[in-house]
Amino acid sequence: MKALFHIDENERWPRVLLNIENFLRDVGPGGADIEVVANGAGVLAYRGEQGELTARMAELARGGVVFAACRNALNMNGIADDALPAFVTVVPAGITEIVKKQEAGYAYIKP
Amino acid sequence: MKALFHIDENERWPRVLLNIENFLRDVGPGGADIEVVANGAGVLAYRGEQGELTARMAELARGGVVFAACRNALNMNGIADDALPAFVTVVPAGITEIVKKQEAGYAYIKP
Amino acid sequence: MKALFHIDENERWPRVLLNIENFLRDVGPGGADIEVVANGAGVLAYRGEQGELTARMAELARGGVVFAACRNALNMNGIADDALPAFVTVVPAGITEIVKKQEAGYAYIKP
Repeated sequence: MKALFHIDENERWPRVLLNIENFLRDVGPGGADIEVVANGAGVLAYRGEQGELTARMAELARGGVVFAACRNALNMNGIADDALPAFVTVVPAGITEIVKKQEAGYAYIKP
Repeated sequence: MKALFHIDENERWPRVLLNIENFLRDVGPGGADIEVVANGAGVLAYRGEQGELTARMAELARGGVVFAACRNALNMNGIADDALPAFVTVVPAGITEIVKKQEAGYAYIKP
Repeated sequence: MKALFHIDENERWPRVLLNIENFLRDVGPGGADIEVVANGAGVLAYRGEQGELTARMAELARGGVVFAACRNALNMNGIADDALPAFVTVVPAGITEIVKKQEAGYAYIKP
């Protein structure tokens, strides 16, 4: 299974992470290719280390979950690349990434 | 046509039901396979009978609309199976169900 | 690439338009077929001329972006056809349009 999670509101991160954790518990480790694309205010959670939230992302990233950030959103929010956690991948435009992934067979989910 | 409606905020139920009612009026009875997947706080509307909202769901269910509830969300919200309206189907994980349906050709809609 | 943007909350228009502008900047003019489907309260931005917002829509429409409005939502909000900007297309039911476009290979995005 392949799943793309879209987040553009920072306060929805706990919901997104819980969705992914429950999903992986259901399908088992490695049971799905998962990518999270954050654009708009969704990138704010990538600004440095944010305790429990960042720790849960890092744990999921170790299990293979991809965390992407939209370059435009990082610029608009004044977040420099060296402020990003090591597991974050920057993509030129979040929407392009979302469209490409759906074309590659990923299901779209907007928690 | 096949359509999957995702709801994870309880206050959006009127919008979801109106969307489905208008959709069915447009395509005609039996014109589409429709499933609603509720996870997160979206399952709160399944807690027993809730008057007009439950009545509209029941009416749609009689017309073939599937109403699914995420097991994790039911547990988190302390909703026992015997509190669910008879037309509700429980799925082990809402996200898995959403991904599977999209893989089966269902369009995704998040009202 | 083909992308369908769904909007049913009027206050999200700035976000939707910025998403599309950044997307087109990334893929280049004509690099994607783009349609916006507004239903529910999302059609309120189509009520006559609304300054900068309408100007940005018109500019995108000149570049080929399709702006659709759900007939049911227009009726519910008392918006007559002659109040709509010239670039708006009316569809009988927003959800039907969204499902059809996904069946035609459009990626779904809900900003």
